[in-house]
Amino acid sequence: MQKVSEIRVRYAETDAMGIVYHANYLVWMEIARTELFRLLGLPYTQFESEGLALAVVDAALRYKAPAKYDDLLELHAEVTEVSSRKVVFSYKVLRGDVLLCEGETVHLFVNQDGRAVSAGGFPIWQNVKRIFDL
Amino acid sequence: MQKVSEIRVRYAETDAMGIVYHANYLVWMEIARTELFRLLGLPYTQFESEGLALAVVDAALRYKAPAKYDDLLELHAEVTEVSSRKVVFSYKVLRGDVLLCEGETVHLFVNQDGRAVSAGGFPIWQNVKRIFDL
Amino acid sequence: MQKVSEIRVRYAETDAMGIVYHANYLVWMEIARTELFRLLGLPYTQFESEGLALAVVDAALRYKAPAKYDDLLELHAEVTEVSSRKVVFSYKVLRGDVLLCEGETVHLFVNQDGRAVSAGGFPIWQNVKRIFDL
Amino acid sequence: MQKVSEIRVRYAETDAMGIVYHANYLVWMEIARTELFRLLGLPYTQFESEGLALAVVDAALRYKAPAKYDDLLELHAEVTEVSSRKVVFSYKVLRGDVLLCEGETVHLFVNQDGRAVSAGGFPIWQNVKRIFDL
Repeated sequence: MQKVSEIRVRYAETDAMGIVYHANYLVWMEIARTELFRLLGLPYTQFESEGLALAVVDAALRYKAPAKYDDLLELHAEVTEVSSRKVVFSYKVLRGDVLLCEGETVHLFVNQDGRAVSAGGFPIWQNVKRIFDL
Repeated sequence: MQKVSEIRVRYAETDAMGIVYHANYLVWMEIARTELFRLLGLPYTQFESEGLALAVVDAALRYKAPAKYDDLLELHAEVTEVSSRKVVFSYKVLRGDVLLCEGETVHLFVNQDGRAVSAGGFPIWQNVKRIFDL
Repeated sequence: MQKVSEIRVRYAETDAMGIVYHANYLVWMEIARTELFRLLGLPYTQFESEGLALAVVDAALRYKAPAKYDDLLELHAEVTEVSSRKVVFSYKVLRGDVLLCEGETVHLFVNQDGRAVSAGGFPIWQNVKRIFDL
Repeated sequence: MQKVSEIRVRYAETDAMGIVYHANYLVWMEIARTELFRLLGLPYTQFESEGLALAVVDAALRYKAPAKYDDLLELHAEVTEVSSRKVVFSYKVLRGDVLLCEGETVHLFVNQDGRAVSAGGFPIWQNVKRIFDL
Protein backbone atom coordinates (compact mmCIF):
# COMPACT_ATOMS: atom_id res chain seq x y z
CA MET A 1 0.00 0.00 0.00
CA GLN A 2 1.39 3.43 -0.89
CA LYS A 3 1.05 6.85 0.63
CA VAL A 4 -1.12 8.87 -1.72
CA SER A 5 -1.95 12.06 0.14
CA GLU A 6 -1.62 14.10 3.29
CA ILE A 7 -4.53 15.91 4.83
CA ARG A 8 -4.92 18.34 7.70
CA VAL A 9 -7.95 17.70 9.94
CA ARG A 10 -10.51 20.50 9.58
CA TYR A 11 -12.49 21.91 12.47
CA ALA A 12 -15.62 21.05 10.51
CA GLU A 13 -14.61 17.39 10.66
CA THR A 14 -14.54 17.20 14.46
CA ASP A 15 -17.54 16.49 16.67
CA ALA A 16 -18.62 17.18 20.23
CA MET A 17 -16.46 14.28 21.49
CA GLY A 18 -13.50 16.46 20.48
CA ILE A 19 -12.39 14.01 17.80
CA VAL A 20 -13.03 13.47 14.11
CA TYR A 21 -16.58 12.38 13.31
CA HIS A 22 -16.41 8.83 11.98
CA ALA A 23 -18.18 9.44 8.66
CA ASN A 24 -15.31 11.67 7.51
CA TYR A 25 -13.06 8.65 7.06
CA LEU A 26 -15.23 7.66 4.09
CA VAL A 27 -14.62 11.12 2.64
CA TRP A 28 -10.89 10.72 3.18
CA MET A 29 -10.91 7.26 1.59
CA GLU A 30 -12.48 8.86 -1.45
CA ILE A 31 -9.66 11.40 -1.53
CA ALA A 32 -7.21 8.51 -1.20
CA ARG A 33 -8.59 6.58 -4.18
CA THR A 34 -8.81 9.76 -6.27
CA GLU A 35 -5.16 10.53 -5.56
CA LEU A 36 -4.09 6.91 -6.07
CA PHE A 37 -5.75 6.89 -9.49
CA ARG A 38 -4.19 10.25 -10.32
CA LEU A 39 -0.74 8.90 -9.40
CA LEU A 40 -1.37 5.82 -11.53
CA GLY A 41 -2.19 8.06 -14.49
CA LEU A 42 -5.93 7.47 -14.31
CA PRO A 43 -7.51 10.77 -13.24
CA TYR A 44 -11.07 10.16 -12.14
CA THR A 45 -12.28 13.14 -14.16
CA GLN A 46 -11.27 11.16 -17.27
CA PHE A 47 -13.64 8.35 -16.31
CA GLU A 48 -16.33 10.96 -15.81
CA SER A 49 -15.66 12.61 -19.16
CA GLU A 50 -16.25 9.22 -20.80
CA GLY A 51 -19.55 8.84 -18.94
CA LEU A 52 -18.21 6.24 -16.50
CA ALA A 53 -18.32 6.40 -12.72
CA LEU A 54 -17.29 4.11 -9.90
CA ALA A 55 -20.33 3.62 -7.66
CA VAL A 56 -19.66 2.44 -4.12
CA VAL A 57 -21.54 -0.77 -3.33
CA ASP A 58 -19.74 -1.85 -0.18
CA ALA A 59 -17.70 -0.13 2.50
CA ALA A 60 -16.04 -1.43 5.65
CA LEU A 61 -14.18 0.64 8.22
CA ARG A 62 -12.28 -0.37 11.34
CA TYR A 63 -11.52 2.50 13.71
CA LYS A 64 -8.38 2.05 15.80
CA ALA A 65 -7.61 5.47 17.30
CA PRO A 66 -9.16 8.92 17.04
CA ALA A 67 -7.89 11.81 14.92
CA LYS A 68 -8.00 15.33 16.34
CA TYR A 69 -8.34 18.84 15.00
CA ASP A 70 -5.29 20.06 13.09
CA ASP A 71 -3.69 16.60 12.95
CA LEU A 72 -1.63 16.00 9.84
CA LEU A 73 -2.65 12.59 8.52
CA GLU A 74 -1.34 10.27 5.83
CA LEU A 75 -3.70 8.51 3.49
CA HIS A 76 -2.51 5.19 2.08
CA ALA A 77 -4.35 3.21 -0.55
CA GLU A 78 -4.06 0.35 -2.98
CA VAL A 79 -6.18 -1.42 -5.54
CA THR A 80 -6.63 -5.01 -4.39
CA GLU A 81 -8.90 -6.19 -7.19
CA VAL A 82 -9.83 -4.84 -10.60
CA SER A 83 -11.92 -6.09 -13.48
CA SER A 84 -14.02 -4.44 -16.18
CA ARG A 85 -16.93 -4.62 -13.74
CA LYS A 86 -15.49 -3.98 -10.31
CA VAL A 87 -12.67 -2.25 -8.43
CA VAL A 88 -11.77 -2.94 -4.81
CA PHE A 89 -9.69 -0.47 -2.80
CA SER A 90 -7.96 -0.90 0.53
CA TYR A 91 -7.01 2.07 2.76
CA LYS A 92 -5.11 3.10 5.84
CA VAL A 93 -5.30 6.45 7.62
CA LEU A 94 -2.22 7.13 9.74
CA ARG A 95 -0.86 9.84 12.03
CA GLY A 96 2.85 9.17 11.91
CA ASP A 97 3.20 5.50 12.85
CA VAL A 98 -0.21 5.30 14.47
CA LEU A 99 -2.91 3.54 12.47
CA LEU A 100 -6.18 5.43 13.00
CA CYS A 101 -8.47 3.63 10.62
CA GLU A 102 -8.36 1.03 7.89
CA GLY A 103 -10.96 -0.17 5.48
CA GLU A 104 -12.08 -1.27 2.07
CA THR A 105 -14.56 -0.07 -0.51
CA VAL A 106 -15.98 -2.05 -3.41
CA HIS A 107 -17.06 -0.19 -6.55
CA LEU A 108 -18.92 -1.09 -9.70
CA PHE A 109 -18.47 0.72 -12.99
CA VAL A 110 -21.72 2.49 -13.78
CA ASN A 111 -22.85 4.65 -16.68
CA GLN A 112 -24.47 8.07 -16.45
CA ASP A 113 -27.83 6.50 -15.60
CA GLY A 114 -26.24 4.73 -12.66
CA ARG A 115 -26.54 1.31 -14.30
CA ALA A 116 -23.73 -1.22 -13.76
CA VAL A 117 -21.79 -1.65 -16.98
CA SER A 118 -18.62 -3.25 -18.23
CA ALA A 119 -15.84 -0.70 -18.58
CA GLY A 120 -14.53 -2.92 -21.38
CA GLY A 121 -16.02 -0.86 -24.17
CA PHE A 122 -14.74 2.52 -22.94
CA PRO A 123 -11.50 4.10 -24.24
CA ILE A 124 -10.07 4.47 -20.71
CA TRP A 125 -10.25 0.72 -20.24
CA GLN A 126 -7.14 0.36 -22.40
CA ASN A 127 -5.26 2.47 -19.86
CA VAL A 128 -6.67 0.52 -16.93
CA LYS A 129 -5.61 -2.77 -18.53
CA ARG A 130 -2.10 -1.53 -19.19
CA ILE A 131 -1.61 0.01 -15.77
CA PHE A 132 -2.90 -3.02 -13.85
CA ASP A 133 -1.36 -5.49 -16.27
CA LEU A 134 -4.65 -7.25 -17.00
CA MET B 1 -41.85 35.02 8.98
CA GLN B 2 -43.38 31.57 9.42
CA LYS B 3 -42.18 28.36 11.01
CA VAL B 4 -41.45 25.97 8.17
CA SER B 5 -39.66 23.03 9.75
CA GLU B 6 -38.26 21.45 12.88
CA ILE B 7 -34.91 19.75 12.95
CA ARG B 8 -33.03 17.73 15.51
CA VAL B 9 -29.29 18.55 15.77
CA ARG B 10 -27.17 15.64 14.54
CA TYR B 11 -23.94 14.55 16.18
CA ALA B 12 -22.29 15.01 12.78
CA GLU B 13 -23.22 18.70 12.95
CA THR B 14 -21.33 19.39 16.18
CA ASP B 15 -17.67 20.28 16.42
CA ALA B 16 -14.89 20.06 18.98
CA MET B 17 -16.21 23.17 20.76
CA GLY B 18 -19.19 20.99 21.71
CA ILE B 19 -21.60 23.10 19.68
CA VAL B 20 -22.95 23.10 16.15
CA TYR B 21 -20.36 23.94 13.51
CA HIS B 22 -21.31 27.30 12.01
CA ALA B 23 -21.47 26.16 8.35
CA ASN B 24 -24.43 23.91 9.14
CA TYR B 25 -26.70 26.92 9.50
CA LEU B 26 -26.40 27.43 5.74
CA VAL B 27 -27.54 23.83 5.28
CA TRP B 28 -30.49 24.43 7.60
CA MET B 29 -31.40 27.64 5.78
CA GLU B 30 -31.56 25.61 2.61
CA ILE B 31 -33.92 23.16 4.33
CA ALA B 32 -35.97 26.16 5.46
CA ARG B 33 -36.37 27.63 1.97
CA THR B 34 -37.14 24.19 0.52
CA GLU B 35 -39.89 23.65 3.09
CA LEU B 36 -41.18 27.20 2.71
CA PHE B 37 -41.51 26.70 -1.05
CA ARG B 38 -43.15 23.31 -0.51
CA LEU B 39 -45.69 24.91 1.87
CA LEU B 40 -46.35 27.65 -0.69
CA GLY B 41 -47.09 25.01 -3.31
CA LEU B 42 -43.81 25.48 -5.15
CA PRO B 43 -41.78 22.29 -4.59
CA TYR B 44 -38.18 22.91 -5.57
CA THR B 45 -38.07 19.64 -7.50
CA GLN B 46 -40.60 21.20 -9.90
CA PHE B 47 -38.18 24.04 -10.66
CA GLU B 48 -35.51 21.41 -11.27
CA SER B 49 -37.76 19.35 -13.54
CA GLU B 50 -38.19 22.46 -15.70
CA GLY B 51 -34.43 22.98 -15.83
CA LEU B 52 -34.42 25.92 -13.44
CA ALA B 53 -32.39 26.28 -10.28
CA LEU B 54 -31.92 28.96 -7.65
CA ALA B 55 -28.20 29.64 -7.37
CA VAL B 56 -26.98 31.32 -4.19
CA VAL B 57 -25.10 34.53 -4.92
CA ASP B 58 -25.08 36.10 -1.47
CA ALA B 59 -25.39 34.83 2.07
CA ALA B 60 -25.26 36.59 5.42
CA LEU B 61 -25.46 34.98 8.84
CA ARG B 62 -25.53 36.47 12.32
CA TYR B 63 -24.86 33.98 15.09
CA LYS B 64 -26.52 34.82 18.42
CA ALA B 65 -26.28 31.67 20.55
CA PRO B 66 -24.94 28.16 20.00
CA ALA B 67 -27.01 25.06 19.24
CA LYS B 68 -26.05 21.76 20.86
CA TYR B 69 -26.33 18.10 20.02
CA ASP B 70 -29.88 16.73 20.12
CA ASP B 71 -31.45 20.20 20.37
CA LEU B 72 -34.82 20.45 18.70
CA LEU B 73 -34.76 23.60 16.59
CA GLU B 74 -37.33 25.60 14.68
CA LEU B 75 -36.59 26.92 11.23
CA HIS B 76 -38.45 30.07 10.20
CA ALA B 77 -38.28 31.60 6.76
CA GLU B 78 -39.88 34.10 4.45
CA VAL B 79 -39.44 35.46 0.96
CA THR B 80 -38.60 39.16 1.22
CA GLU B 81 -38.13 39.84 -2.48
CA VAL B 82 -39.02 38.01 -5.65
CA SER B 83 -38.75 38.77 -9.33
CA SER B 84 -38.27 36.69 -12.47
CA ARG B 85 -34.52 37.09 -11.92
CA LYS B 86 -33.99 36.99 -8.20
CA VAL B 87 -35.38 35.64 -4.92
CA VAL B 88 -34.32 36.84 -1.47
CA PHE B 89 -34.99 34.75 1.63
CA SER B 90 -34.78 35.69 5.27
CA TYR B 91 -34.36 33.10 8.07
CA LYS B 92 -34.37 32.56 11.78
CA VAL B 93 -33.17 29.47 13.65
CA LEU B 94 -34.70 29.20 17.11
CA ARG B 95 -34.60 26.88 20.12
CA GLY B 96 -37.87 27.67 21.82
CA ASP B 97 -37.83 31.43 22.30
CA VAL B 98 -34.08 31.73 21.89
CA LEU B 99 -32.86 33.10 18.59
CA LEU B 100 -29.72 31.18 17.63
CA CYS B 101 -29.03 32.57 14.20
CA GLU B 102 -30.62 34.77 11.58
CA GLY B 103 -29.66 35.53 8.05
CA GLU B 104 -30.48 36.12 4.42
CA THR B 105 -29.62 34.50 1.13
CA VAL B 106 -29.95 35.99 -2.32
CA HIS B 107 -30.57 33.68 -5.28
CA LEU B 108 -30.62 34.08 -9.03
CA PHE B 109 -32.60 31.87 -11.34
CA VAL B 110 -30.15 29.87 -13.44
CA ASN B 111 -30.58 27.30 -16.18
CA GLN B 112 -28.94 23.88 -16.34
CA ASP B 113 -25.69 25.44 -17.55
CA GLY B 114 -25.63 27.65 -14.49
CA ARG B 115 -26.35 30.81 -16.48
CA ALA B 116 -28.56 33.48 -14.94
CA VAL B 117 -31.89 33.53 -16.74
CA SER B 118 -35.32 35.06 -16.40
CA ALA B 119 -37.79 32.59 -14.93
CA GLY B 120 -40.43 34.46 -16.94
CA GLY B 121 -40.48 31.98 -19.80
CA PHE B 122 -40.83 28.87 -17.65
CA PRO B 123 -44.21 27.24 -16.87
CA ILE B 124 -43.62 27.39 -13.10
CA TRP B 125 -43.38 31.18 -13.29
CA GLN B 126 -47.18 31.36 -13.58
CA ASN B 127 -47.41 29.68 -10.19
CA VAL B 128 -44.77 31.95 -8.69
CA LYS B 129 -46.63 35.02 -9.95
CA ARG B 130 -49.93 33.84 -8.57
CA ILE B 131 -48.53 32.80 -5.17
CA PHE B 132 -46.57 36.00 -4.65
CA ASP B 133 -49.23 38.17 -6.23
CA LEU B 134 -46.83 39.70 -8.77
CA MET C 1 -35.96 -4.22 13.08
CA GLN C 2 -38.21 -1.23 13.69
CA LYS C 3 -38.77 2.06 11.92
CA VAL C 4 -37.20 4.73 14.10
CA SER C 5 -37.20 7.88 12.01
CA GLU C 6 -38.03 9.53 8.72
CA ILE C 7 -35.67 11.93 7.03
CA ARG C 8 -35.90 14.15 3.99
CA VAL C 9 -32.76 14.15 1.78
CA ARG C 10 -31.02 17.53 1.91
CA TYR C 11 -29.44 19.20 -1.09
CA ALA C 12 -26.20 19.31 0.91
CA GLU C 13 -26.25 15.51 1.01
CA THR C 14 -26.23 15.05 -2.75
CA ASP C 15 -23.13 14.96 -4.94
CA ALA C 16 -22.22 15.64 -8.54
CA MET C 17 -23.55 12.21 -9.57
CA GLY C 18 -26.99 13.62 -8.70
CA ILE C 19 -27.45 11.16 -5.84
CA VAL C 20 -26.73 11.09 -2.13
CA TYR C 21 -23.03 11.00 -1.28
CA HIS C 22 -22.29 7.62 0.29
CA ALA C 23 -20.76 8.92 3.55
CA ASN C 24 -24.12 10.42 4.56
CA TYR C 25 -25.53 6.96 5.25
CA LEU C 26 -23.20 6.77 8.27
CA VAL C 27 -24.70 10.05 9.48
CA TRP C 28 -28.20 8.67 9.00
CA MET C 29 -27.30 5.46 10.82
CA GLU C 30 -26.23 7.60 13.74
CA ILE C 31 -29.60 9.35 13.65
CA ALA C 32 -31.22 5.91 13.56
CA ARG C 33 -29.42 4.63 16.65
CA THR C 34 -30.05 7.88 18.50
CA GLU C 35 -33.77 7.63 17.77
CA LEU C 36 -33.87 3.92 18.55
CA PHE C 37 -32.29 4.58 21.96
CA ARG C 38 -34.68 7.47 22.56
CA LEU C 39 -37.66 5.21 21.75
CA LEU C 40 -36.28 2.56 24.09
CA GLY C 41 -36.09 5.14 26.89
CA LEU C 42 -32.33 5.53 26.72
CA PRO C 43 -31.64 9.05 25.39
CA TYR C 44 -28.02 9.28 24.31
CA THR C 45 -27.65 12.62 26.09
CA GLN C 46 -28.14 10.69 29.35
CA PHE C 47 -25.10 8.52 28.56
CA GLU C 48 -23.19 11.70 27.87
CA SER C 49 -24.29 13.35 31.09
CA GLU C 50 -22.86 10.36 32.96
CA GLY C 51 -19.55 10.69 31.09
CA LEU C 52 -20.16 7.69 28.86
CA ALA C 53 -20.06 7.59 25.09
CA LEU C 54 -20.44 4.91 22.43
CA ALA C 55 -17.35 5.04 20.21
CA VAL C 56 -17.65 3.47 16.78
CA VAL C 57 -15.01 0.80 16.20
CA ASP C 58 -16.44 -0.93 13.16
CA ALA C 59 -18.82 0.00 10.39
CA ALA C 60 -20.07 -1.88 7.37
CA LEU C 61 -22.37 -0.58 4.65
CA ARG C 62 -23.92 -2.24 1.64
CA TYR C 63 -25.36 0.15 -0.92
CA LYS C 64 -28.27 -1.24 -2.94
CA ALA C 65 -29.87 1.74 -4.67
CA PRO C 66 -29.26 5.49 -4.67
CA ALA C 67 -31.25 8.09 -2.76
CA LYS C 68 -32.03 11.42 -4.43
CA TYR C 69 -32.63 14.98 -3.34
CA ASP C 70 -35.91 15.52 -1.50
CA ASP C 71 -36.58 11.78 -1.11
CA LEU C 72 -38.44 10.90 2.05
CA LEU C 73 -36.59 7.97 3.62
CA GLU C 74 -37.28 5.59 6.46
CA LEU C 75 -34.57 4.67 8.91
CA HIS C 76 -34.87 1.26 10.56
CA ALA C 77 -32.61 0.01 13.31
CA GLU C 78 -32.19 -2.64 15.95
CA VAL C 79 -29.70 -3.61 18.61
CA THR C 80 -28.33 -7.04 17.72
CA GLU C 81 -25.86 -7.39 20.57
CA VAL C 82 -25.35 -5.59 23.86
CA SER C 83 -23.04 -6.04 26.82
CA SER C 84 -21.45 -3.71 29.37
CA ARG C 85 -18.57 -3.30 26.91
CA LYS C 86 -20.11 -3.33 23.47
CA VAL C 87 -23.25 -2.53 21.49
CA VAL C 88 -23.91 -3.69 17.94
CA PHE C 89 -26.53 -2.00 15.78
CA SER C 90 -28.06 -3.09 12.50
CA TYR C 91 -29.72 -0.66 10.07
CA LYS C 92 -31.78 -0.35 6.94
CA VAL C 93 -32.45 2.79 4.92
CA LEU C 94 -35.59 2.51 2.79
CA ARG C 95 -37.57 4.60 0.33
CA GLY C 96 -40.98 3.02 0.52
CA ASP C 97 -40.37 -0.68 -0.13
CA VAL C 98 -37.00 -0.12 -1.78
CA LEU C 99 -33.97 -0.97 0.32
CA LEU C 100 -31.29 1.66 -0.38
CA CYS C 101 -28.63 0.68 2.11
CA GLU C 102 -28.11 -1.67 5.01
CA GLY C 103 -25.29 -1.98 7.49
CA GLU C 104 -23.97 -2.51 10.96
CA THR C 105 -21.90 -0.52 13.41
CA VAL C 106 -20.04 -1.85 16.44
CA HIS C 107 -19.52 0.46 19.42
CA LEU C 108 -17.52 0.29 22.62
CA PHE C 109 -18.45 2.17 25.74
CA VAL C 110 -15.76 4.78 26.39
CA ASN C 111 -15.24 7.36 29.11
CA GLN C 112 -14.56 11.05 28.60
CA ASP C 113 -10.91 10.33 27.85
CA GLY C 114 -11.97 8.00 25.07
CA ARG C 115 -10.83 4.88 26.93
CA ALA C 116 -12.87 1.70 26.61
CA VAL C 117 -14.68 1.02 29.88
CA SER C 118 -17.35 -1.23 31.27
CA ALA C 119 -20.69 0.55 31.47
CA GLY C 120 -21.41 -1.74 34.43
CA GLY C 121 -20.50 0.85 37.05
CA PHE C 122 -22.62 3.68 35.59
CA PRO C 123 -26.18 4.47 36.79
CA ILE C 124 -27.60 4.20 33.28
CA TRP C 125 -26.47 0.59 33.08
CA GLN C 126 -29.41 -0.42 35.30
CA ASN C 127 -31.74 0.97 32.62
CA VAL C 128 -29.84 -0.76 29.84
CA LYS C 129 -30.05 -4.10 31.69
CA ARG C 130 -33.75 -3.74 32.29
CA ILE C 131 -34.58 -2.65 28.75
CA PHE C 132 -32.54 -5.38 27.07
CA ASP C 133 -33.44 -7.97 29.65
CA LEU C 134 -29.81 -8.76 30.48
CA MET D 1 -4.46 39.63 1.16
CA GLN D 2 -2.10 36.66 0.95
CA LYS D 3 -2.42 33.14 -0.39
CA VAL D 4 -2.54 30.86 2.61
CA SER D 5 -3.49 27.45 1.27
CA GLU D 6 -4.39 25.34 -1.72
CA ILE D 7 -7.20 22.83 -1.63
CA ARG D 8 -8.50 20.22 -4.02
CA VAL D 9 -12.29 20.03 -4.31
CA ARG D 10 -13.60 16.77 -2.84
CA TYR D 11 -16.44 14.76 -4.36
CA ALA D 12 -18.18 15.05 -1.00
CA GLU D 13 -18.24 18.83 -1.44
CA THR D 14 -20.19 18.77 -4.70
CA ASP D 15 -23.97 18.67 -4.98
CA ALA D 16 -26.57 17.56 -7.48
CA MET D 17 -26.08 20.76 -9.50
CA GLY D 18 -22.64 19.36 -10.32
CA ILE D 19 -20.86 22.15 -8.46
CA VAL D 20 -19.59 22.76 -4.95
CA TYR D 21 -22.33 23.10 -2.35
CA HIS D 22 -22.28 26.68 -1.09
CA ALA D 23 -21.88 25.90 2.63
CA ASN D 24 -18.43 24.43 1.97
CA TYR D 25 -17.01 27.89 1.37
CA LEU D 26 -17.47 28.58 5.09
CA VAL D 27 -15.43 25.43 5.80
CA TRP D 28 -12.73 26.61 3.41
CA MET D 29 -12.69 30.05 4.99
CA GLU D 30 -12.05 28.37 8.31
CA ILE D 31 -9.12 26.50 6.74
CA ALA D 32 -7.91 29.84 5.38
CA ARG D 33 -7.92 31.60 8.74
CA THR D 34 -6.30 28.58 10.43
CA GLU D 35 -3.50 28.60 7.87
CA LEU D 36 -3.15 32.38 7.98
CA PHE D 37 -2.75 32.26 11.77
CA ARG D 38 -0.27 29.37 11.45
CA LEU D 39 1.78 31.39 8.94
CA LEU D 40 1.69 34.39 11.28
CA GLY D 41 3.07 32.22 14.09
CA LEU D 42 -0.25 31.95 15.91
CA PRO D 43 -1.39 28.32 15.62
CA TYR D 44 -5.04 28.06 16.57
CA THR D 45 -4.32 25.02 18.73
CA GLN D 46 -2.32 27.35 20.98
CA PHE D 47 -5.39 29.52 21.58
CA GLU D 48 -7.30 26.36 22.40
CA SER D 49 -4.62 25.11 24.79
CA GLU D 50 -5.02 28.38 26.70
CA GLY D 51 -8.78 27.92 26.85
CA LEU D 52 -9.53 30.58 24.24
CA ALA D 53 -11.54 30.16 21.08
CA LEU D 54 -12.67 32.44 18.28
CA ALA D 55 -16.43 32.13 17.99
CA VAL D 56 -18.01 33.20 14.70
CA VAL D 57 -20.66 35.86 15.21
CA ASP D 58 -21.05 37.11 11.66
CA ALA D 59 -20.39 35.72 8.21
CA ALA D 60 -20.94 37.13 4.76
CA LEU D 61 -20.29 35.38 1.47
CA ARG D 62 -20.57 36.58 -2.11
CA TYR D 63 -20.55 33.81 -4.69
CA LYS D 64 -19.13 34.79 -8.08
CA ALA D 65 -18.54 31.56 -9.98
CA PRO D 66 -18.94 27.86 -9.16
CA ALA D 67 -16.14 25.46 -8.20
CA LYS D 68 -16.21 21.93 -9.57
CA TYR D 69 -15.00 18.52 -8.48
CA ASP D 70 -11.22 18.12 -8.52
CA ASP D 71 -10.59 21.85 -9.03
CA LEU D 72 -7.40 23.08 -7.41
CA LEU D 73 -8.30 26.25 -5.53
CA GLU D 74 -6.34 28.97 -3.79
CA LEU D 75 -7.45 30.31 -0.45
CA HIS D 76 -6.47 33.91 0.32
CA ALA D 77 -7.05 35.59 3.66
CA GLU D 78 -6.16 38.57 5.75
CA VAL D 79 -6.98 40.02 9.14
CA THR D 80 -8.73 43.34 8.62
CA GLU D 81 -9.41 44.16 12.26
CA VAL D 82 -8.11 42.85 15.55
CA SER D 83 -8.61 43.78 19.19
CA SER D 84 -8.57 41.89 22.47
CA ARG D 85 -12.29 41.24 21.92
CA LYS D 86 -12.74 40.75 18.21
CA VAL D 87 -11.01 39.58 15.04
CA VAL D 88 -12.31 40.20 11.53
CA PHE D 89 -11.08 38.14 8.57
CA SER D 90 -11.50 38.73 4.87
CA TYR D 91 -11.22 35.91 2.29
CA LYS D 92 -11.03 35.14 -1.39
CA VAL D 93 -11.38 31.72 -3.02
CA LEU D 94 -9.80 31.59 -6.47
CA ARG D 95 -9.27 29.12 -9.27
CA GLY D 96 -6.29 30.59 -11.06
CA ASP D 97 -7.30 34.16 -11.81
CA VAL D 98 -11.00 33.52 -11.41
CA LEU D 99 -12.57 34.75 -8.20
CA LEU D 100 -15.12 32.17 -7.07
CA CYS D 101 -16.17 33.57 -3.74
CA GLU D 102 -15.23 36.31 -1.31
CA GLY D 103 -16.39 37.06 2.18
CA GLU D 104 -15.78 38.10 5.73
CA THR D 105 -16.22 36.55 9.14
CA VAL D 106 -16.32 38.33 12.48
CA HIS D 107 -15.16 36.48 15.58
CA LEU D 108 -15.25 37.15 19.28
CA PHE D 109 -12.79 35.69 21.74
CA VAL D 110 -14.67 33.28 24.00
CA ASN D 111 -13.61 31.11 26.92
CA GLN D 112 -14.33 27.41 27.35
CA ASP D 113 -17.88 28.16 28.46
CA GLY D 114 -18.47 30.04 25.25
CA ARG D 115 -18.63 33.42 27.00
CA ALA D 116 -17.16 36.47 25.26
CA VAL D 117 -13.95 37.50 27.02
CA SER D 118 -11.05 39.82 26.54
CA ALA D 119 -8.00 37.98 25.23
CA GLY D 120 -5.95 40.60 27.06
CA GLY D 121 -5.27 38.44 30.09
CA PHE D 122 -4.12 35.36 28.15
CA PRO D 123 -0.42 34.62 27.47
CA ILE D 124 -0.99 34.35 23.71
CA TRP D 125 -2.21 37.94 23.63
CA GLN D 126 1.40 39.12 23.87
CA ASN D 127 2.09 37.30 20.60
CA VAL D 128 -1.03 38.71 18.97
CA LYS D 129 -0.04 42.24 19.99
CA ARG D 130 3.47 41.84 18.67
CA ILE D 131 2.43 40.25 15.38
CA PHE D 132 -0.30 42.79 14.64
CA ASP D 133 1.69 45.69 16.03
CA LEU D 134 -1.03 46.72 18.49
